[in-house]
Amino acid sequence: MNNYILKDENAIYYECGYSSDNAIFLKCGLESFFITDSRYSIEAKEMVRKAKVLTSKDLITTAQNIIKKSKIKVIHFDPKEWSMFAYNKLSQDIKVRFKPTVDLSHQKRIIKREDELLLIEHAAKLGKKAFTSLAKEFVQNGFGENEYRLTYTAKSILSDFGNYDLSFDPIVAINANAAKPHALPTSTKLKKNSLLLVDAGLKYQRYCSDRTRTVEANKDFRFDREQKFQSKKMQKAYDTVLKAHDRAISKVRSGMKAHKVDALCRDIIEKAGFGEYFVHSTGHGVGLDIHEMPYISSKSNTIIEDGMVYTIEPGIYIPDKFGIRIEDMVAMVNGRAEVL
Amino acid sequence: MNNYILKDENAIYYECGYSSDNAIFLKCGLESFFITDSRYSIEAKEMVRKAKVLTSKDLITTAQNIIKKSKIKVIHFDPKEWSMFAYNKLSQDIKVRFKPTVDLSHQKRIIKREDELLLIEHAAKLGKKAFTSLAKEFVQNGFGENEYRLTYTAKSILSDFGNYDLSFDPIVAINANAAKPHALPTSTKLKKNSLLLVDAGLKYQRYCSDRTRTVEANKDFRFDREQKFQSKKMQKAYDTVLKAHDRAISKVRSGMKAHKVDALCRDIIEKAGFGEYFVHSTGHGVGLDIHEMPYISSKSNTIIEDGMVYTIEPGIYIPDKFGIRIEDMVAMVNGRAEVL
Repeated sequence: MNNYILKDENAIYYECGYSSDNAIFLKCGLESFFITDSRYSIEAKEMVRKAKVLTSKDLITTAQNIIKKSKIKVIHFDPKEWSMFAYNKLSQDIKVRFKPTVDLSHQKRIIKREDELLLIEHAAKLGKKAFTSLAKEFVQNGFGENEYRLTYTAKSILSDFGNYDLSFDPIVAINANAAKPHALPTSTKLKKNSLLLVDAGLKYQRYCSDRTRTVEANKDFRFDREQKFQSKKMQKAYDTVLKAHDRAISKVRSGMKAHKVDALCRDIIEKAGFGEYFVHSTGHGVGLDIHEMPYISSKSNTIIEDGMVYTIEPGIYIPDKFGIRIEDMVAMVNGRAEVL
Repeated sequence: MNNYILKDENAIYYECGYSSDNAIFLKCGLESFFITDSRYSIEAKEMVRKAKVLTSKDLITTAQNIIKKSKIKVIHFDPKEWSMFAYNKLSQDIKVRFKPTVDLSHQKRIIKREDELLLIEHAAKLGKKAFTSLAKEFVQNGFGENEYRLTYTAKSILSDFGNYDLSFDPIVAINANAAKPHALPTSTKLKKNSLLLVDAGLKYQRYCSDRTRTVEANKDFRFDREQKFQSKKMQKAYDTVLKAHDRAISKVRSGMKAHKVDALCRDIIEKAGFGEYFVHSTGHGVGLDIHEMPYISSKSNTIIEDGMVYTIEPGIYIPDKFGIRIEDMVAMVNGRAEVL
């Protein structure tokens, strides 16, 4: 794949070490170009590696002119990155063949380089430490606060008070709100013995972390993997999720198809009678994007390989009652999953 | 336009009062549908108005099946909202004609309803109050802190410590970094008499505010419109930007084309000899999106009308030296611009 054109911010960052929310990266013959508008030109010139920086009021036309002047005949693009509007403009009045290549950048990024693994490991380590701090803060000052305020506290601690970007808006969900896998905060307050689910991550040098813990908020709770619940049903659901989570991590091997990894989790949950309440996939790749390849779903035929990084995050969601999820990131090393 | 299909989160929210990051809204004959995945189904059923909520693992196929069963012949979509990938899937094996309608939702939203104006006014008022608080906080505790930490402080105060979402990541830029209109934070520290530019906004019930002030950070600075700078060049640039800003706001009238409004600002800056340093448009509409119609640019033929809400934000950016921008939101009322 000699020639390609990228529009997604992280796809572009991966190529040249810089990006902005209005940029195009073009690999055309032997040359590479980073095209952005004047708002970003100073930073781009400082930071872009291995590509010529061009500033333009009309990025697509600038890209098109370069393609026209070159002698290339085929150029690859990802149809997920390009809106119909942008693609129509890019491809009009031009003889080059635009070849759709789904997940072009995500495919390139599915196996992490050593330096990327170090950054992701560090992000995961910072994320884990933040969970430890967050439990302490919630134990001391969280009771009586609502989900809005607890989410703000989570953002403050995860970002180390502004030093890190977040991978996504943290989820801090109490009791029935935890039954929504992507819950938005509400005015529900944290009380003694509430069920509390926290799903959060941060970015270290643009690489994401992702982690979920569920606890019963007693007076000195911690976000450990072993948890005690007063309700027998919650305890059964929790133990089932933990067993599913641990089984997938211990049994996955490089060479296995992703749907088999999903089944390692799902079988346990189904056998315990909670099958209908595990409403999402087992996991997703993590890197520059918080959701990337490989997808650990019942439909995925992706073969797991060394150097892949993804989450294992089984869950059980009882509508209007409670939800439980346990999520860790793993990296495939020497054929097995290492928890990050 | 009887039939249309939407994919953008704010476009969908405008139709039915709820949205998620994975949803499709479909108006098909007399019926409307909100389609999302199981992660959001509980919230969707609670909050969606005037549309049937459907949960699906494959949103596009579900939408396609509804379209196929209906007797409609034409359906509108916005080619900016749909990736090539999603559109190809949606439109394959189906006889209905998909009619591209650029900015379909933004066009509907360009004139704000009374209830929207109230929400936007309130967002702007909260944003203004936050700037007052922020100046106090920076005067007391900001000197010696770097842009990362100052940005975190701005996020905390703008969000009222988690009560509001932000319109965008605030820009807090010092001296030469302010010469980048979309500056990212650096380790540059705020010192006495630094130039300080803050561009920030928050959301009230999903409607955005947007505001920029530039000051010389003396020991009791405030984000007022009148500012004193020790450097004569900075003062001249500041006074020019303020004059351009005030002129556009006082002279704009309903019925005027947007490029004329841009010219009201640009002429002043050009005449003062700073023309080449005003590197962006004069403003943009604000609503559910932080950037929406009308665009106040030198190319825009949009006619300004009562009920439109947009920013006036001229700037002068001297590379490697400093940048100045003054931004306010205005609403068109009885033919004139009212500052929000």
